[in-house]
Amino acid sequence: MSKTLNVGIIGAGRIGQVHAATLAYRVPEARLAAVADLNLAAAQALADRFRVPVATDNPDVIFADPTVDAVLICSVTATHAPFIEAAAAAGKHVFCEKPIALDLAQIDRALAAVAKAGVKLQVGFNRRFDANFRRVRRAIESGEIGQPALLHIVSRDPAPPPIEYVKGSGGMFLDMTIHDFDMARFLIGDEIEEVYAQAGVTVDPSIGEAGDVDTAVTLLRFANGVIGTIDNCRRATYGYDQRVEVFGSKGAISTMNNYPNAAIVSDAASVRRDLPLHFFMDRYVESFAAEVMAFVDAVLNDQPVPVTGLDGRAPVVMALAAMKSYREGRPVKVSEIG
Amino acid sequence: MSKTLNVGIIGAGRIGQVHAATLAYRVPEARLAAVADLNLAAAQALADRFRVPVATDNPDVIFADPTVDAVLICSVTATHAPFIEAAAAAGKHVFCEKPIALDLAQIDRALAAVAKAGVKLQVGFNRRFDANFRRVRRAIESGEIGQPALLHIVSRDPAPPPIEYVKGSGGMFLDMTIHDFDMARFLIGDEIEEVYAQAGVTVDPSIGEAGDVDTAVTLLRFANGVIGTIDNCRRATYGYDQRVEVFGSKGAISTMNNYPNAAIVSDAASVRRDLPLHFFMDRYVESFAAEVMAFVDAVLNDQPVPVTGLDGRAPVVMALAAMKSYREGRPVKVSEIG
Amino acid sequence: MSKTLNVGIIGAGRIGQVHAATLAYRVPEARLAAVADLNLAAAQALADRFRVPVATDNPDVIFADPTVDAVLICSVTATHAPFIEAAAAAGKHVFCEKPIALDLAQIDRALAAVAKAGVKLQVGFNRRFDANFRRVRRAIESGEIGQPALLHIVSRDPAPPPIEYVKGSGGMFLDMTIHDFDMARFLIGDEIEEVYAQAGVTVDPSIGEAGDVDTAVTLLRFANGVIGTIDNCRRATYGYDQRVEVFGSKGAISTMNNYPNAAIVSDAASVRRDLPLHFFMDRYVESFAAEVMAFVDAVLNDQPVPVTGLDGRAPVVMALAAMKSYREGRPVKVSEIG
Amino acid sequence: MSKTLNVGIIGAGRIGQVHAATLAYRVPEARLAAVADLNLAAAQALADRFRVPVATDNPDVIFADPTVDAVLICSVTATHAPFIEAAAAAGKHVFCEKPIALDLAQIDRALAAVAKAGVKLQVGFNRRFDANFRRVRRAIESGEIGQPALLHIVSRDPAPPPIEYVKGSGGMFLDMTIHDFDMARFLIGDEIEEVYAQAGVTVDPSIGEAGDVDTAVTLLRFANGVIGTIDNCRRATYGYDQRVEVFGSKGAISTMNNYPNAAIVSDAASVRRDLPLHFFMDRYVESFAAEVMAFVDAVLNDQPVPVTGLDGRAPVVMALAAMKSYREGRPVKVSEIG
Repeated sequence: MSKTLNVGIIGAGRIGQVHAATLAYRVPEARLAAVADLNLAAAQALADRFRVPVATDNPDVIFADPTVDAVLICSVTATHAPFIEAAAAAGKHVFCEKPIALDLAQIDRALAAVAKAGVKLQVGFNRRFDANFRRVRRAIESGEIGQPALLHIVSRDPAPPPIEYVKGSGGMFLDMTIHDFDMARFLIGDEIEEVYAQAGVTVDPSIGEAGDVDTAVTLLRFANGVIGTIDNCRRATYGYDQRVEVFGSKGAISTMNNYPNAAIVSDAASVRRDLPLHFFMDRYVESFAAEVMAFVDAVLNDQPVPVTGLDGRAPVVMALAAMKSYREGRPVKVSEIG
Repeated sequence: MSKTLNVGIIGAGRIGQVHAATLAYRVPEARLAAVADLNLAAAQALADRFRVPVATDNPDVIFADPTVDAVLICSVTATHAPFIEAAAAAGKHVFCEKPIALDLAQIDRALAAVAKAGVKLQVGFNRRFDANFRRVRRAIESGEIGQPALLHIVSRDPAPPPIEYVKGSGGMFLDMTIHDFDMARFLIGDEIEEVYAQAGVTVDPSIGEAGDVDTAVTLLRFANGVIGTIDNCRRATYGYDQRVEVFGSKGAISTMNNYPNAAIVSDAASVRRDLPLHFFMDRYVESFAAEVMAFVDAVLNDQPVPVTGLDGRAPVVMALAAMKSYREGRPVKVSEIG
Repeated sequence: MSKTLNVGIIGAGRIGQVHAATLAYRVPEARLAAVADLNLAAAQALADRFRVPVATDNPDVIFADPTVDAVLICSVTATHAPFIEAAAAAGKHVFCEKPIALDLAQIDRALAAVAKAGVKLQVGFNRRFDANFRRVRRAIESGEIGQPALLHIVSRDPAPPPIEYVKGSGGMFLDMTIHDFDMARFLIGDEIEEVYAQAGVTVDPSIGEAGDVDTAVTLLRFANGVIGTIDNCRRATYGYDQRVEVFGSKGAISTMNNYPNAAIVSDAASVRRDLPLHFFMDRYVESFAAEVMAFVDAVLNDQPVPVTGLDGRAPVVMALAAMKSYREGRPVKVSEIG
Repeated sequence: MSKTLNVGIIGAGRIGQVHAATLAYRVPEARLAAVADLNLAAAQALADRFRVPVATDNPDVIFADPTVDAVLICSVTATHAPFIEAAAAAGKHVFCEKPIALDLAQIDRALAAVAKAGVKLQVGFNRRFDANFRRVRRAIESGEIGQPALLHIVSRDPAPPPIEYVKGSGGMFLDMTIHDFDMARFLIGDEIEEVYAQAGVTVDPSIGEAGDVDTAVTLLRFANGVIGTIDNCRRATYGYDQRVEVFGSKGAISTMNNYPNAAIVSDAASVRRDLPLHFFMDRYVESFAAEVMAFVDAVLNDQPVPVTGLDGRAPVVMALAAMKSYREGRPVKVSEIG
């Protein structure tokens, strides 16, 4: 491989643009070689902005390009697994946005292709790279709070996505809670054995009419005995609410939200601060960059990727278990799913 | 009834002394008429300290005293129900520490006796009178955070009680979580329909050997759709941890712990503050006083008591449901219990 | 002296009532023997409320009563010094509200009388007993923040007193900043050598018309080199603002305000909490009690009082220096005053 | 002028590299045309890293280059004024690090050259672009806290610079407090009329031996009556301490420090968080970028620069006044200096 990593980006939407900017501006070892998007104008716009030499509406152009070392799959979910397979077949390393797929058989086929090709696959659970959550993980790894016993994750969006998006999302557990399932595994460093989900519709009746929920609490039981709860809602009026607390035998660690500034105003009405960072692109700007830098580093130096294909599979299993639990009104063993 | 409320105290232990001090120092309308404790020396000591004219080892002396208007039952749990019945039969108003009993039949007999006698009964869920939790309740009642959707209660003790106490306590759900069950009902202002409990032993194996747990998460489903979680542990190294968060359609309200001072130290190691108030007697000193003042006020002015006999019964039902859920590994409808 | 301290209270106004309640309810070793107020009805009301046997409009009744061991002087400032002298002449120990007097000669006469009589005199700088400021003092005494270098005191009232009060107050430095001058000496444990004051009228022009200021910053130079600033205003819209920060060679300690509850509300407008405790009687309720308990303890056990007559004199000197500095527009050595 | 701004950088040290990275990665409209440094290797290293076509040890190469539109002066202080003059003579727009010079005559000559040439000059007071301080300024501009009355600035470094640097720095007031003098003017939006400085040596005796101080409090009087204090120290054990508070007629606004994460650890010792961002390059990373982006924008769109030459001159005058005040032990009118 060249000392520089030549990268193709598939999908020139919002997240594709974020990753392109990271590669262009913050990773001297990376070179943007090509960008593909079904919408050729979008591909061309991204290429123009970041001086990418090739823009195409055909991903096969990237897979077939022998100068491309790695691909970033930033296209819609349904294409993730087939593109992973194609990239692996072409011997390209892969960074793929989450989820790999909504269907376990598809995921397993993609992981098998990756294994067979001997390429690296990293899944885009960017929150693992956030300074707050890394600090929590470090507290657990270092023993700072002793043996963990309880985990509480709060994960609320500022507003629900458009109803059309909801309909194709696979449901809240697969679309939103999936990040929290990954966070739970990442922080505790152990597997979940059982989930029990309570959920409902409190934000928008049309979400319920679409067969989905917008508010949920999921109770987790880890193999090592840790008990966790995930507290989700599609709409928090005050913005993006992303916090965790882990309680252990020697103490506890909890994280607050991130804010645009550290100013406090006191007046005749209250003592207050501005709302937390409202949007996930603001809140996680650094973690999006860090995951891509970690991927480039892992490929160039032939190190293990920090978020593996199995890390991409597990949260899908958990989400399917949570959906089953919610529908059947009973705790579901993860082993029932896969 | 006299314009002054003549009060007899049954049980001269820790909580009996706290309530006696409130009546002696902070309630001009109350007069301590008599104190009873099986341990006559303890009764006498309390009487001496607060200038109570009568000290006895026989509660019947109090029940038989026509000058006594009301009794405070601060003795061990097993005596609560019979003493309520005896007091009611004697026409005394009753303030009784929680829980009324560990057995529903006993509770129902006591409540029937109270109803028949037409006396007032207030149950000692003091935390309802805490400034933080009252503020949360007010936010919900006033609509400040809109329609509640999610509730999270953290309730951790600084250290487990002696193992002998644990053995006679009825188990953590009945002894410790019972306060949180009451808090959940109080804050949301609705009944719980279903509970699901996960629990384990992470603090002290001898608690497990005694057949109890020391760490638990209980998931609650309210009739109005609110989903709640209660996060308990018998030991938090950093002290008494008592917080709640309620999330609603217009916003959220959460409470922090209370601290002995508001000082922050910054040095080469960290930016820190002293530990929160460590002991429930410090944390809830004002709420213990406020509940007794409210009782005296309700009796003297013939108003409804703020925590009724049914408020005392409901958390016992929930605790029994949580125990059943934990033992059977499934969600349990509260209606299965009683 | 009797094992019980018999106390006479002179002045049945707001602060007299606060101290009477402490003695009645929280100090078993104290007995309220008599209360005097020029307004006999006020004296009688206080006596009735706390079951004080003697109410009079003549303080001499208290000075002449051989059963009275100590007096609390809670009357208007102009009477403090003469009442101290009278009490000392009668052999009574004295607790006197601040300031001793607005005039140094008067103060010195009172202190001489106390010294000659060999009685104890404690001055009512209650804030020294506040949990926050005690914690700061402890950090300095223990070396937790190393050698102090910088001090910043914020002391703002929720609203100015009535203009008639302002006119008789001796000016803001003597009436309000005096507490902060005492706090500065208490926290740093050293004497101030020089002050420089900048001040103005930003709250109410009528305060300026009365020859006073309502907003000021006073810069202090301690003998040990510490540099301090005091930041005062007669009106903070958000309530009573009482904070300090001390910066030292090993770190810093700062205190926040005290709040009625520890709840935080997040909604579409802000993340906020309720206003801090608004009124000094709420903010300092415990420190008012603690200073009186300390006085009783010092007298009964013949220990040094925690706030001496010289502690009462020094802040008056500093206030006079600050006034001179403000008027002359230059730094003033405290030694220029007395 | 070309639609792209061609920029030459003079000085390839730490801050030169920071600005080069901003221009290279975050300002598509800018092109790095040349870099000069007396140390040619340093110039070459920067040029290599950011693909700058020209590296030289002679700034005149840049001044003489007709394709260069603007220069960033990032060299040592003594060269700022002459380089401004040279750049202005060559018709280049100038961004110059603070201070313009330590000598008013030099500053005035440089400003005259800029005025004569009709080029733009922006001075590098980056902190004006920090999110916290911008928020404070906005509160004042919008009337959110009413009419300002009091200002308090805390500005402490994590560690003093090397003693050799101190000797050539012009003294703490010119080297460190100068940022705070600018901040005071920026936040209040008014001129300072008088300063009074108290200072000493508490960190390192060798700083005193070099004739400088390392700890100071400067009291400011603004033309509009606002009273301010600046609290400086060369070493805070807990890191970089950069906070302000402004108190006004309708309320107050204060800023906290910035932290590397928002995690709180509770254990048997304390409730704590990690130290604030320790180094100014971390704390102000975004404000360094923002000021350069603002400069490019002002030049390309022919708008006023946000920090003018007069904004660069005023804090030098204030620093000279503070030095005079400290030496003479009296308040000094800014008009005494220039």
